[in-house]
Parts: sequence; structure tokens; C-alpha cells
Amino acid sequence: MISKKMEKMVANNSAIRAMFEEGNRLAQIYGRENVYDFSLGNPNVPAPEAVKSAIQEILEEDSLMVHGYNNSNAGYEDVRQVVAESVNERFGTAFAAKNIIMTVGAAGGLNIILKALLNPGDEVLTFAPYFVEYRSYVANYDGNLIEVSPNTVDFQPKLDEFEEKITAKTRAVIVNNPNNPTGVVYSEETIKKMAAILEKKQKELGTEIFLISDEPYRELAYDGVEVPYLTKYYANTVVGYSYSKSLSLPGERIGYLVIPDEAADSENVIGAATIANRILGFVNAPTLQQRVVAKCINEKTDISYYDRNRETLYNGLAELGFECVKPEGAFYLFVKSPVADEKEFVAAAKKHHILLVPGSSFACPGYVRIAYCVSYETIVNSLPKFADLMKEYN
Amino acid sequence: MISKKMEKMVANNSAIRAMFEEGNRLAQIYGRENVYDFSLGNPNVPAPEAVKSAIQEILEEDSLMVHGYNNSNAGYEDVRQVVAESVNERFGTAFAAKNIIMTVGAAGGLNIILKALLNPGDEVLTFAPYFVEYRSYVANYDGNLIEVSPNTVDFQPKLDEFEEKITAKTRAVIVNNPNNPTGVVYSEETIKKMAAILEKKQKELGTEIFLISDEPYRELAYDGVEVPYLTKYYANTVVGYSYSKSLSLPGERIGYLVIPDEAADSENVIGAATIANRILGFVNAPTLQQRVVAKCINEKTDISYYDRNRETLYNGLAELGFECVKPEGAFYLFVKSPVADEKEFVAAAKKHHILLVPGSSFACPGYVRIAYCVSYETIVNSLPKFADLMKEYN
Repeated sequence: MISKKMEKMVANNSAIRAMFEEGNRLAQIYGRENVYDFSLGNPNVPAPEAVKSAIQEILEEDSLMVHGYNNSNAGYEDVRQVVAESVNERFGTAFAAKNIIMTVGAAGGLNIILKALLNPGDEVLTFAPYFVEYRSYVANYDGNLIEVSPNTVDFQPKLDEFEEKITAKTRAVIVNNPNNPTGVVYSEETIKKMAAILEKKQKELGTEIFLISDEPYRELAYDGVEVPYLTKYYANTVVGYSYSKSLSLPGERIGYLVIPDEAADSENVIGAATIANRILGFVNAPTLQQRVVAKCINEKTDISYYDRNRETLYNGLAELGFECVKPEGAFYLFVKSPVADEKEFVAAAKKHHILLVPGSSFACPGYVRIAYCVSYETIVNSLPKFADLMKEYN
Repeated sequence: MISKKMEKMVANNSAIRAMFEEGNRLAQIYGRENVYDFSLGNPNVPAPEAVKSAIQEILEEDSLMVHGYNNSNAGYEDVRQVVAESVNERFGTAFAAKNIIMTVGAAGGLNIILKALLNPGDEVLTFAPYFVEYRSYVANYDGNLIEVSPNTVDFQPKLDEFEEKITAKTRAVIVNNPNNPTGVVYSEETIKKMAAILEKKQKELGTEIFLISDEPYRELAYDGVEVPYLTKYYANTVVGYSYSKSLSLPGERIGYLVIPDEAADSENVIGAATIANRILGFVNAPTLQQRVVAKCINEKTDISYYDRNRETLYNGLAELGFECVKPEGAFYLFVKSPVADEKEFVAAAKKHHILLVPGSSFACPGYVRIAYCVSYETIVNSLPKFADLMKEYN
């Protein structure tokens, strides 16, 4: 009875569901504290206290204003102004409220910009390993996601292959920086090279290619590493942001898109993305959370919490002989499987009550993703289990 | 630069935008209180006090639970259970949590069920006049919206034409009860006839046709009129609900879908809609508002406020000689234009600072929509202006 497009997805989904239920089953038998569930990217640092007091303050305002429809599907004008000014202050840009569209998280933002841009058959490039949902988002608008194969040396993008894969059909490129699942941050040098290739190809092909920067992990960067702000390097850049990690509000679905004036046909792209926000059924980003964002614009999550997890788990696993590029951002380790078929390794790990996600889910088999957004205790207690697991491969 | 599908929409949108700006321009010159803006369906009864206290209570809970991702894209299991029990109690149904998907408003709900069901070229029937967004929602999934022409006698659906227009390609029917823009409530008799036609046609064609009941106005029913609960009359029914009007939370984007076990291939339809919630970028309905719904499940908006507006405006306009079917629900009057081209009438009204929406926007030219979700004062003060306006046509 369901649409053909959805049939395969429903079948695949049962596998994910089965994994989730397996985690619950293990927790019921052995206790939640004896299951090392590294499978989910759900932040475990609470929202800053300021979020709570912001909501309490907002509740004292006029209910019709707090909970009403926005005049524009792009969101409250004053909230967008606050966001624009904050971005300008941090990155030396010059955006106005009109360049900002408040969205239902980064996922909502990606969907509306892809709906605004894609014609059927258009190609969207991305770099493996990548967040698996990109494939669905592009398919939603009948585009084709084209993968650039993974560079397993350091997980920086393979720019030669990237250049080769740009065609007259290439409408957009999605980059995720810092990266899910590798935790790698693309350097300024990489971004400059990427921008130069895009400029060259646009000229050669007579097309406009949009660079969509998906940045839910922007604030999770360690060791003082800089995460380049891509609008400064390439005119046709659209930034998608989410407060899911920076304010620990993933369930509240609040983020924004930046569409600069410098982007080709900017006014129409902004118009189309705003209408897409409406007709895809988002209508507007949740209004209470928009106001929270304005009040908490300078709040930050406690990244030292994730950093401690990162150091402890990375060092612990390295000592056990696991191979992994040390991540500079996000809250993931992308670890090489000791056997070629990483699904076999994932199954073996489960016997030690360790739950991992196979790299195949990110178009990069032979690796597994470990989401270390868990308690420090879980990290520490998991290490002897990882040791037991590693013994099977020595 | 934008997609072909969006080009026309961006062009049309400028007209809507122009109307909105005209309203602001008039308000700036003559004062907001001297502009009678009946163009927007934005509830003007504040959210019940219980919403505020519910949020305050929820903020005392664990931030990670309040603002975190849901385990299922369908929403919190306990919230869905509360919703199912409430529906069961009110309508004598027998739904479980699994039959409920929490959605980003009714618009989000309609999008995910259409994504779950439609293949390109599938037809979706609806009855004019209808909420203009249905056309976009169906087009999002490459379906074709087929209109049944308006019955301007009483705005009940034309069932003969409906039957004729059902083909092998008919995948779904959308009904909106109580109706936007007419305020009419489809009676039980109408629904029974509609269900019988659908059953007959399903048998004849060997297909399954889904009846999608879009019910954001369910609680706004006057004079004790009953709004039939459609799952009780036809097995392949999906109900879409929103708290935008019942709790005055339109900007918060919170509602739900009901997919009964009795619907064809129910398990897969539920699965597909849940995945659609994820891949369209909603991910889950905003978590804080889900919990608000559970705590405020028995709260009601003050419909006596709208009812007073309805009576005053309907009687006032009738006395002036305007023709209108007296609405039993929602917060709209659908009034016959005194001239065939209702856009001319809308323009004339604007000269009296009265803002109306032309019926063409709802596929029913010759009529105008008046949204009476405004202050009582606006209603009362507008009547002399309507009188001045009517003089032009006598």
C-alpha cells in the first residue's frame, strides 16, 4: 500500500529498529549500566541553565505572541536579526535578518534548501563517509547523491576525485564540518582548494554550484582548532546550523539557514527556501524555541565534558591497538575494524555489550562509528570490554 | 537558479506578500485599530493558563529527557498513549500508542502521510473550496490534486461528482472538517454516503483509497453540532490533528496523525509515515510541546469567544444583505461577493480598510473568506465599514 520510494526504506528500517531493540533487551537482562551503547548521537550534556530561565521569562510575555504563527515563514524578524549579528561578530561576515531562515533543526534546513534548488536528475556531491540521511534528503527532491570515495588516511576530502565528479548536472555539494562520523575538521587549506575547484568548474561548465555546509557540530571543536566559515571562501555557500548540540536541544528542532546576498540569484533562493519551509509542512521553526535562541545566543555547551571523553576513549583504544584518526570535532570516533567486514566486528562487540554503528551506514565499510556522547563512567567502564573484544583479534 | 517547481510559487508568493505589506502600510497610516484585517487564520484566544504551568513543571524535569531526541521518530511512547486514550474516550475508538504519530502540526502530518502513500501520478481528490496548501502538499510527492467543484448551496460535498472522479489512480481523498474556508461541518449522513461510495469504488477498482481527515478545527464547533470521527465510518481513514487552534499553539508546530489498525497494510503505512517524519527533516515533533500536550490533554480553548464573533459578524453581515451559509465550525465566514469577480470586491473592501481573502485562493471564485479570529471590538467596529462597502453595490 505504501509508495515505492518508501518500500525499501521501511524494509531497511527494521534493521535499525532491531538494533535499538537489541540494546534495550541487553539493558533489561544485564542492567543499563552494563551496556555500552555508543550507537546514538544524542547529546548528553544538559541544556545550559540559561535555556530554562529564558523559557520562564518568555512565558511571562503575551501568549499570542509567544505561541502564534510567524508573520514570515522565515521566522521572527528580531530573532533572525540577533542570529545575523552573532554570526557577523564571530566570523566577520555582514549578514542581515533577511539572510537568515529559522528552521526545524539542520535536517529541516537541508530539506528546504534542497527543495529550493533541485530539479529531478540534478546531482549533489558529498564526501564519504557521510551522514546517511543526505541520501534521503536528496532523493526527496529526485536528485542523485554522488559520493566521493573516502580518504582513509586522514579523512580529509579527496579533492582530485571531487573535481572529476563535477558535471553539468552538479547542482550542489554537501559538506559536514566537523564531520559525522569521523570527527575530522576540514582545514582552511582544504576549503580554499575546494572553493577554487568549484569556481573553476562553474566557469568551465557555465553553471552555479551551491556549497551547502551542514554545521550542527560547529561548536564541538577541540584543541583550539578553527572551523572555517565557508561563506568567506565561496560565494554560492549556504550554511545550515542547528542548536541540537550547541544548546543540547535536539528534540526541540531549532536551527537556521544562512543564504548570503553573494549567492547566485540570492533573493529567489531565499524566497524559494522560505516557501519550501511552508509547503513541506514546517510552516515556521517552533516559536518558543526561536525566542530561546535569541535570549541564549551567547550560551555554550560544556565541551570540556565531551573533550574528556574523547581523550580518554581515543587514548584507551589506541593503547589497545585500535586504529583511528584522532578527531578534532563532533563527538564521534571512526575506528578501523580489525576485520575487513566491520559488521562481523559490530556483532562481536555486541557480545561484549558494546553497541557500535557499522561504517557501511556512512558509505565507508571497514570502519565503525563510536558516539562518545555518553557518561564518562561508560567510557571508563567500556575500556576493559574493548580490551576483551580486541583479544579476539590478536 | 531555483528549481522549476518553485519558480511559479515564488512569483505567486509576491502577491501574498504584497497583501500583507499593504495591511501593514494601512495600519501605519490609519492606526492598527482602524484596519479590519480578516485575512489571517491566527487564533486570537490565548493558550490556556494550564499550558504555561505545564511548561513550568516540565522544566523541572531532566533537561536531557525534556529536550532530547525521541527514541522513535513517532514521538514519546507515553505521550502517544495519552493521546490514544483521550481519542478513545471521546470517540469510542480503540487506538493504541502505536496508532499515533506525533507531528510538526497538521501540515507536517499531511506531508508525511502523503509521502508515505503517493507514487508519482497518483490522484488525490478534495472538495472545493479547500485550503490552498493541499495542492502544494500533493505536488511535493508528484501527485495530482483533483478538485470536486464547490456546492455553493450549502457547501456540503458534491458526492455525485466525487464518485465520477474516482479512478484507478485515486490514492487518497482529503477532507477538512470543520472546513476552511467555509466553516461548514460535514454531517454524519454526508460522511456515511462518502464512505459507501469509497467502499463501492474500492471494490469496483480493486484498489485501496485512503480518506485523510484534516482536523485542526475539530474543537471549534458551535451550537452543539457533532463533528463525526471518520475512522468509525471507513476503515482506510487517517486523521490529522493539530493543537494550533485547540490550545492556541500554532507557532509551536504540534499535532498528530492517527493510523488505525483497520487501515490497509496498516503496519507498513505507520512505518512509512514514521520514516517520512525523519527523512523530510521533521525528525520528531518538538519534544517540550509533546509533553505539554500530554499534560494539557483535557484543556480546551475558549470557543465562546469565537462563537460571539461568529454570531455578531454573521448577523451583522446578513442584515446588510450579504449572502453567507451560516458556519457551524472553524473561525471563518465564506461570503458571496456582490460582484462576480470577487477580487474586485476585495479591492473595494481594502478602500474601507477591510482585508479579505478572495475565494479564488480556495478554488471557489465569487466568494471571499473572512477570518473572524480577531478581537470582538474589531468585529463590532467593522460593521459600519461593511455597511459603507455594501452601499457601493446597492
